[in-house]
Amino acid sequence: MGNTISIFDTTLRDGTQGEGISLSAEDKVKIAQKLDLLGVHYIEGGNPGSNSKDIEFFQRVKGMKLNAKLTAFGSTRRKNSIADQDSSLLRIVESGVPAATLVGKSWDFHVHTALQTTLEENLSMIYDSFAFLRRKGVEAIFDAEHFFDGYKHNPEYALAVLRKAQDAGADWIVLCDTNGGTLPTEIHSIVSRISNELSTPIGIHTHNDCELAVANTLAAVEAGARQIQGTINGYGERCGNANLCSILPTLQLKMNYRCISDDQMQSLTKTARYVSEIANVHMPVAQPYVGNAAFAHKGGIHVSAIMKDSKTYEHIQPELVGNKQRVLVSELAGQSNIISKAQELGLDINANNEKTKQIMERIKDLEHQGYQFEGADASLELLLRDAFGEMKEIFKLESLKMLVEKTNGHGMNAEAIVKVNVDGQTVYMAAEGNGPVNALNNALRKALEQYYPSINDFHLSDYKVRVIDEKDATAAKVRVLMESTDFKNTWNTVGVSNNVIEASWEALVDSIRYALLTKLKVDNHDEPREQLGLVNH
Amino acid sequence: MGNTISIFDTTLRDGTQGEGISLSAEDKVKIAQKLDLLGVHYIEGGNPGSNSKDIEFFQRVKGMKLNAKLTAFGSTRRKNSIADQDSSLLRIVESGVPAATLVGKSWDFHVHTALQTTLEENLSMIYDSFAFLRRKGVEAIFDAEHFFDGYKHNPEYALAVLRKAQDAGADWIVLCDTNGGTLPTEIHSIVSRISNELSTPIGIHTHNDCELAVANTLAAVEAGARQIQGTINGYGERCGNANLCSILPTLQLKMNYRCISDDQMQSLTKTARYVSEIANVHMPVAQPYVGNAAFAHKGGIHVSAIMKDSKTYEHIQPELVGNKQRVLVSELAGQSNIISKAQELGLDINANNEKTKQIMERIKDLEHQGYQFEGADASLELLLRDAFGEMKEIFKLESLKMLVEKTNGHGMNAEAIVKVNVDGQTVYMAAEGNGPVNALNNALRKALEQYYPSINDFHLSDYKVRVIDEKDATAAKVRVLMESTDFKNTWNTVGVSNNVIEASWEALVDSIRYALLTKLKVDNHDEPREQLGLVNH
Repeated sequence: MGNTISIFDTTLRDGTQGEGISLSAEDKVKIAQKLDLLGVHYIEGGNPGSNSKDIEFFQRVKGMKLNAKLTAFGSTRRKNSIADQDSSLLRIVESGVPAATLVGKSWDFHVHTALQTTLEENLSMIYDSFAFLRRKGVEAIFDAEHFFDGYKHNPEYALAVLRKAQDAGADWIVLCDTNGGTLPTEIHSIVSRISNELSTPIGIHTHNDCELAVANTLAAVEAGARQIQGTINGYGERCGNANLCSILPTLQLKMNYRCISDDQMQSLTKTARYVSEIANVHMPVAQPYVGNAAFAHKGGIHVSAIMKDSKTYEHIQPELVGNKQRVLVSELAGQSNIISKAQELGLDINANNEKTKQIMERIKDLEHQGYQFEGADASLELLLRDAFGEMKEIFKLESLKMLVEKTNGHGMNAEAIVKVNVDGQTVYMAAEGNGPVNALNNALRKALEQYYPSINDFHLSDYKVRVIDEKDATAAKVRVLMESTDFKNTWNTVGVSNNVIEASWEALVDSIRYALLTKLKVDNHDEPREQLGLVNH
Repeated sequence: MGNTISIFDTTLRDGTQGEGISLSAEDKVKIAQKLDLLGVHYIEGGNPGSNSKDIEFFQRVKGMKLNAKLTAFGSTRRKNSIADQDSSLLRIVESGVPAATLVGKSWDFHVHTALQTTLEENLSMIYDSFAFLRRKGVEAIFDAEHFFDGYKHNPEYALAVLRKAQDAGADWIVLCDTNGGTLPTEIHSIVSRISNELSTPIGIHTHNDCELAVANTLAAVEAGARQIQGTINGYGERCGNANLCSILPTLQLKMNYRCISDDQMQSLTKTARYVSEIANVHMPVAQPYVGNAAFAHKGGIHVSAIMKDSKTYEHIQPELVGNKQRVLVSELAGQSNIISKAQELGLDINANNEKTKQIMERIKDLEHQGYQFEGADASLELLLRDAFGEMKEIFKLESLKMLVEKTNGHGMNAEAIVKVNVDGQTVYMAAEGNGPVNALNNALRKALEQYYPSINDFHLSDYKVRVIDEKDATAAKVRVLMESTDFKNTWNTVGVSNNVIEASWEALVDSIRYALLTKLKVDNHDEPREQLGLVNH
């Protein structure tokens, strides 16, 4: 058996079963392009037999040149019917895909309870459906639903199901742990036995209900599976599917299997973050390999060790998956964290420096007030550069005013009026917006535009408000985290106040200062902040 | 070897190394009480030798009656010094804890690079420190840092380190995969070998850098480890520590090990959510066992199957860990999801009903506008009950107005003026607040208070704003998710608009209606919404 693994991505199909995940046809097209660049071998696009959005997707993708095989998803034919007349199977063939995955029952309990038919009829449904696909020249993948549960309850029947698909000419037989309840040792032993029974190549499809989807996939590969079904960031029903972003690097960098090229592996972090952005799902900072904190060091002792040799607290080089080492600044940090961060920015700082101590005190004081710089690298960078007198002020606020109004039956109006001083000149500007923060953003940008035209090259991409838990509920503060992007880079800023507008204002001003000042420095350079090392790390 | 596993929780120590996690002494006390109720055997409180917050914590906890053993954390003595004079070791003894964990180096590379001492001195540091703790009558746990990496590079030295701790009288020897880079098969084979070499009981401490911390812990238990170190929700440095919320149920419900009582297991979900609340970290909906979506069903076929038998798509009964089955309503859902949700609420609905189709259309239309009911069960419930004419209106809005103002050097003011009609009477009320939404909340509550005094029994506990990604950036909508609580129950509501204030207003009105109407129904019953099945499921 070779060491090449076939990667089957189902982000666009099983991934959309996750709570809060909803992708338009346009979103799906965008993601399919990124998956193709990442180098997955199969892209499961959806179910052309079940909804019009997926039909639109398959039509739009037809004209694109993809290296990956686009696959459609469906079920084996309906009970007591004919495969050639099954509308869902016909739609799959009509969609023009080179490959298709059909899910079928392999657990006798499900045949009786969910399908409500006989064990024999289920076997015929499987045989007929795969024979039909092969007659139509479509590569045919069998997803044996609930295979492990089925095998544990009735191994003869579960195996008979697989044999039927094999006899009908299925190209892959994929064993599914649909409910996510199986353990790695069970997976290993069952996959080993099945590999010996079948001549068709085996695949694995796991779910994360026990937080074991990645381990179960690895165990199956070690037992002989050569196709992996999973999703970017582990999106999927209930607790999600197997997370390809964790499986790919572990297989390739640690276990000597071959999945994608080394260059493609370096695009993993970028791909994961892009998909999370399009899916509009916040990526957990602690996500393995690709998360923002995956190589972030907080404890002072750890930071001082990684400054000697990063291998002391990093299991791989972050660059192999396109991620970066970061040093977090927090109350747990020794001075070494500040020093490391400042050195990264090219600032002249060292442990015995009086300035380092002052900055440390200032950061501690701000954290005490509720600021959190771990999620706001741009604000921290401004703070450090300000302390070294490296940054100039862009403008001074003289006043701002905001009005929001609604009467029954009418929409709501928001307007902001700002008075700022730029280079000695007073600019007075008003703007409307979608609510107060947007109005403020619009008014401030209008005021600064004539002085800094590049302000139009970036925009706010996310805005989060969090109530900071305090004993005195009436004095509760809020923390605003703002994310901005120029489509190449992303930076985060923070503001804290009793007033959400004031906190938003702080984060907004930091975002604009960060972008304009680091942009001004490098003029029109193609990769401004990356080159200077000024982007989030 | 028995099947009883000792649970060592380090949420309060290693957990706080996670990005964005910062706990006050008060937070730590609260969490320690919940951990004790959950039934963990050791609660690692922090490092009394390193910071004053932890010293305060140990002092405050001294007076509490805990079943769990409180443990302090520290390192082996400094190089070239005497254990009896090591300030950090002395502070541990002074803190009065019954047990302590000392971390020591077991990887020769770290001894040279990070510690910068000789292999012999490191062995003496370990021996001296454990001998000291035992002389002082403190139960002594050795965390062998980077043990697996060390063992792979220099097995003789790694083993010599463990033997030193054993010779000095350590009560537990805990093998740490500090960098999180080791695979389950490696863990299993190394722990098996070590179990045979030592007479001291073995523990396991893993990190999640390959998304394998849970699998690695299970593999170690199968190989003989009898103490598990982990954290609630897997908080911890970089990608986090082993997640006790996934490990405990898998060990106990699936592998026949004994960790905590069955009643305690049923408090797992509550405990996990409480800790996430205190740590102020959003819990991923897809978190295994305890997440809000862990037993949530979205696909129409899945929903129709679980209505026949929940075992079809659930690997355990959610109640065993204190979680609940949920049916999500989304474009992927067949009618069965709506029916199931409505039946849960006791509404008269069925598949052939014209009303069901109307409701379905209405929900699809709202989702198209950007609403998301998956994270806003209370809003969905109101929608369903409204469709059945079950709910009355609490008030009618006549108008609202808001003003926010700031001049240079002064703080920001926010005031709201609302005019509402309650039971035919017009109430006109103004209030200030921390920003516009708070002012609005204050004004509305003041207006309703005289009619609904129980409005003071609950408050907003979280408020989130998310920009909904749309092609036309200038017309971007926002979605507001609001969480409210009466300390017993939590409910979530949603609002969508081009204007964040309007979206907030919608979510706020839903929150108040949900609380007042479901509260009114049951009067002063002790567990109002739980009893009626009206709380989030």
